[in-house]
Amino acid sequence: MFNVAVAQSGGPTAAINASLSGVFSGAELCPEVGEIYGSFNGIEGILKDELIDLRKVLITEHDKELLMKTPSTILGSCRYKLKSPDEDIESYEKICETFKRHNIKMFFYIGGNDSMDTVMKLDAYFKSAGIDIKVVGVPKTIDNDVTETDHTPGFGSAAKYVATSLQEIIRDSRVYSIPSVTIVEIMGREAGWLAASSCVLRANGEPAPHMIYLPESDFTVDKFLTDVKEAQKRYKAVIVAVSEGIKCDDEKYKNGGFSSELTDAFGHKYLSGIGKFLEHITAAEIGCKVRSIELNVMQRCGSHIASLTDITEAERIGREAVSAAVSGKSGVMMIFKRISNDPYRVDIQTAEIAKIANQEKKFPKEWINEHGNNVTVDALNYFLPLIQGEPVIEYRNGIPVHFKLNQ
Amino acid sequence: MFNVAVAQSGGPTAAINASLSGVFSGAELCPEVGEIYGSFNGIEGILKDELIDLRKVLITEHDKELLMKTPSTILGSCRYKLKSPDEDIESYEKICETFKRHNIKMFFYIGGNDSMDTVMKLDAYFKSAGIDIKVVGVPKTIDNDVTETDHTPGFGSAAKYVATSLQEIIRDSRVYSIPSVTIVEIMGREAGWLAASSCVLRANGEPAPHMIYLPESDFTVDKFLTDVKEAQKRYKAVIVAVSEGIKCDDEKYKNGGFSSELTDAFGHKYLSGIGKFLEHITAAEIGCKVRSIELNVMQRCGSHIASLTDITEAERIGREAVSAAVSGKSGVMMIFKRISNDPYRVDIQTAEIAKIANQEKKFPKEWINEHGNNVTVDALNYFLPLIQGEPVIEYRNGIPVHFKLNQ
Repeated sequence: MFNVAVAQSGGPTAAINASLSGVFSGAELCPEVGEIYGSFNGIEGILKDELIDLRKVLITEHDKELLMKTPSTILGSCRYKLKSPDEDIESYEKICETFKRHNIKMFFYIGGNDSMDTVMKLDAYFKSAGIDIKVVGVPKTIDNDVTETDHTPGFGSAAKYVATSLQEIIRDSRVYSIPSVTIVEIMGREAGWLAASSCVLRANGEPAPHMIYLPESDFTVDKFLTDVKEAQKRYKAVIVAVSEGIKCDDEKYKNGGFSSELTDAFGHKYLSGIGKFLEHITAAEIGCKVRSIELNVMQRCGSHIASLTDITEAERIGREAVSAAVSGKSGVMMIFKRISNDPYRVDIQTAEIAKIANQEKKFPKEWINEHGNNVTVDALNYFLPLIQGEPVIEYRNGIPVHFKLNQ
Repeated sequence: MFNVAVAQSGGPTAAINASLSGVFSGAELCPEVGEIYGSFNGIEGILKDELIDLRKVLITEHDKELLMKTPSTILGSCRYKLKSPDEDIESYEKICETFKRHNIKMFFYIGGNDSMDTVMKLDAYFKSAGIDIKVVGVPKTIDNDVTETDHTPGFGSAAKYVATSLQEIIRDSRVYSIPSVTIVEIMGREAGWLAASSCVLRANGEPAPHMIYLPESDFTVDKFLTDVKEAQKRYKAVIVAVSEGIKCDDEKYKNGGFSSELTDAFGHKYLSGIGKFLEHITAAEIGCKVRSIELNVMQRCGSHIASLTDITEAERIGREAVSAAVSGKSGVMMIFKRISNDPYRVDIQTAEIAKIANQEKKFPKEWINEHGNNVTVDALNYFLPLIQGEPVIEYRNGIPVHFKLNQ
């Protein structure tokens, strides 16, 4: 008999709790596993020995179901960067102490690229020190920028939220008879997967968004203005989807923020995002009605419009992580391998963590159209299966019910 | 036999098309009614004789069902202000021509306070000129600021969107171990109904939003900062709901925009909303992690999380408008009269348009708490019935299906 621990790290998603539920269910099925510990605030909870016995809070099947439909992380998260053992051996010793104290032999870390660095370092340390603790990564991020895996849990739900909201914004933008431009800023600092996914509306015959700009596009302000003017010849209400992380050539837009002459009443540099920046430029240069909209954190935690495919896969990959550890694997991350698009099928496998940690998977250049202002049908076919299906949401007093730790 | 016309005006909502569907169904049931015309872009369509025969586009029951679940206005909208006949008799003559040309004897105008001014003026003109055309107003606005009626169609769905999104934002805000303040800016320029409705989360035991500020509150920046500091003693992640229209005493925030020293690269005054303004002040004065979030147009067109109560009532009030006109009424708006809260029951009646046009129903002072930073349980009991139930959404390719005119 031994115990296991699981933690959640990085930015919230609508599916990270589904993976937690999956790890829990997978561990529950192992007769060798005693306690199943949750660590608060990622690796910080291991460092500080702040653990919770998950068997005491996830009691019924209903608890697990609710957890799967609850956004963000019930255990909290962190952005903690573990240094190398050479630089900070104490942290490793503390981690070992916590694991030893609670007889923890397996550790599951649900997170993105940065969190996989922690998986890699811990696994390497344990191996070098001859400590038998298995460390397995479970991917999650709405950015979909993790290498080796076909896609990441959390991404499909974010994409479904973006598509659904964008379709409503498009309806909203068309009501008046005057020309307008609506710029929707979508998350993705280094990779444009989520903004690109807005192309899925095309599957239902919707031509908007008329332009999609990604960090991987060759973007210039001049080209943007030309594209808008061109689109205005065909559409009264032009819709633009733009990744927050696009690289902008304009001097006034630097370091991912529109700073230039803007300082606020406190003398602080005023940083606005690319959406607001392009709104100003469009208003100044084209002079029509312009609006910019940030989908903000709602796009990463919109569990009320989650993708059932995403939630189901997130749970499944969590379960499989336990099987992988039980079969002796460590220093790996669980990955999806896409077998086919139609019918959609994925296998779950493992990949060496060294190939993943601190890497970034960019949106493929070959899926960007010739003009650099939209994506191809290959991208559409990649995205579509990931947003299919809707979890049945439980409502109380007209509001979705979330799982809460202290209820 | 005679024909009828219907038009939609003002800002989009998730329920305005349900009222259109209701007017259509009501008219379909009248054996005396021939054509049922839709006017494009509100009264502008009557002025320009831009009509559509709705019987040719709303053919099946499925069409009408889809229409009810489609946000914004399929006929387009306008912000056209009809002058008095003394000032602009030509417009009235044009309207009369269109009505005469198409043998239109009843006109239904779905809109808010401003649109009811058009209903009042048209009705008065027809009566004074001895023209037998009935004009009936059908309320709609997410602002819920129309007098005489208990509430307005569109409001319940917006409130459900706000509550659902806010709950997800709350989950998102709690993941990190550091203190934070999240400020959510909610629509409502003159009346705080929608921001106030965020109190519904309390019904499920959620203490956040910890503060709710309305245009009707006595708001000062100093009090706001004191409230935030007080809340931080109890909550790691403080959540504030704020109406976009709160009256702020700060010199730097004037005319509903944070202008002060801010000018952008084009020399334009930079106007930001109250949320961004309070974010800056909180960051400067308290110095913790602060984020402001605008729910933007998504809150008025979020039909994927509409309130079934709202959509059903919006359809019903549209039908009843036809009955009212058929029974000889004109120069009236349809209203909801709340009979009881538990069980929730409303009657539909009519009210004189002169009592409604250009008026504004403010959020009641007696429903604001003593500290002016939240609302009372009476407000909660008022709001709760309006967000109940969820329409069954039809999905195609993982995206909600909307009714489109040219499909």
